[in-house]
Amino acid sequence: MKLHERKTIAIDMDGVMADVEPQLIKYYEQLYGITTTLEAINGLSHAEAFPLDAATKASLNLPGFFRTLPVMPGAVEAVKKLMEDYEVYIVSAATEFPLSLFEKLEWLQEYFPFIGWRNIVLCGDKSIIHTDYMIDDHCKNLDYCSGKAIMFNAHHNKHEHQHVRVHNWDEVLNLFETEKSAADLV
Amino acid sequence: MKLHERKTIAIDMDGVMADVEPQLIKYYEQLYGITTTLEAINGLSHAEAFPLDAATKASLNLPGFFRTLPVMPGAVEAVKKLMEDYEVYIVSAATEFPLSLFEKLEWLQEYFPFIGWRNIVLCGDKSIIHTDYMIDDHCKNLDYCSGKAIMFNAHHNKHEHQHVRVHNWDEVLNLFETEKSAADLV
Repeated sequence: MKLHERKTIAIDMDGVMADVEPQLIKYYEQLYGITTTLEAINGLSHAEAFPLDAATKASLNLPGFFRTLPVMPGAVEAVKKLMEDYEVYIVSAATEFPLSLFEKLEWLQEYFPFIGWRNIVLCGDKSIIHTDYMIDDHCKNLDYCSGKAIMFNAHHNKHEHQHVRVHNWDEVLNLFETEKSAADLV
Repeated sequence: MKLHERKTIAIDMDGVMADVEPQLIKYYEQLYGITTTLEAINGLSHAEAFPLDAATKASLNLPGFFRTLPVMPGAVEAVKKLMEDYEVYIVSAATEFPLSLFEKLEWLQEYFPFIGWRNIVLCGDKSIIHTDYMIDDHCKNLDYCSGKAIMFNAHHNKHEHQHVRVHNWDEVLNLFETEKSAADLV
């Protein structure tokens, strides 16, 4: 049996709804005294960009890291707009960082209070998530999604070309406008 | 693309891995001074069994409720056994109760330390979870699952008959033995 009459979208948090890269740079500097820039980490994986943090992921385990992330420009309005036509689920890889769970709920409650608890999924890998669309910045999630994969641009995914790429939330909305027009033609 | 070569099972926590009914009775007594029994709540929904708690679900929002749940008899050994042949995911409706998130991870770490973070999903509704099997005690989850639904017996689901019912973890293992034999014959 199918619950949803509307098509479903899974939307990632870090790197998509939340602007995680400036925060990683800030915490890396605080923890290790090493300053880097968005330009310097362009095209690098997390481990390559932040080598001293690669083994322990200490910065991601610090209280407050996820709670104080800035919102990605345009995300609030765009998610609200998508919810008019789609069933939107927030699907965030979070169980690797136990402290992030509560912080992510609080963060959503602050910036996206119109998203209810029923539509929030905090998980490990995303391989059993089944939606019509998935917006994410990581191939490890998009490669195995059963629906249409949409890659949100990030410095770490510059060299990945197997998925449709969007650079910002305006482009997300344009893409879904096109999807809607195509569906109307059928 | 499909990630798993092995078939997948989604396993619920409360009422399946964790024995939630005695805890509900204990907290109801502490909060409202009313004593009930497993026999008395047989066939009743949560709201019918614990009417004073129905609107606020206060007991489920108390710190410690989920952290101190007893393990369902036989669950540890059975889950371990299933993991030999299947990709097992723990899928728990948890985002309604923000305090439960961290407690559920800690509880799993204590009793099921062999389950990694990649295989844990804390969600709201389970409608976008896609696995070959789902073991759960609630029709609201089983009715919409895309795989084979297995209803774990509970006092609240006594009147629901649309799914295969198991009464304990021995019966779960027997059911999967039968599935395996059937698959071997194909």
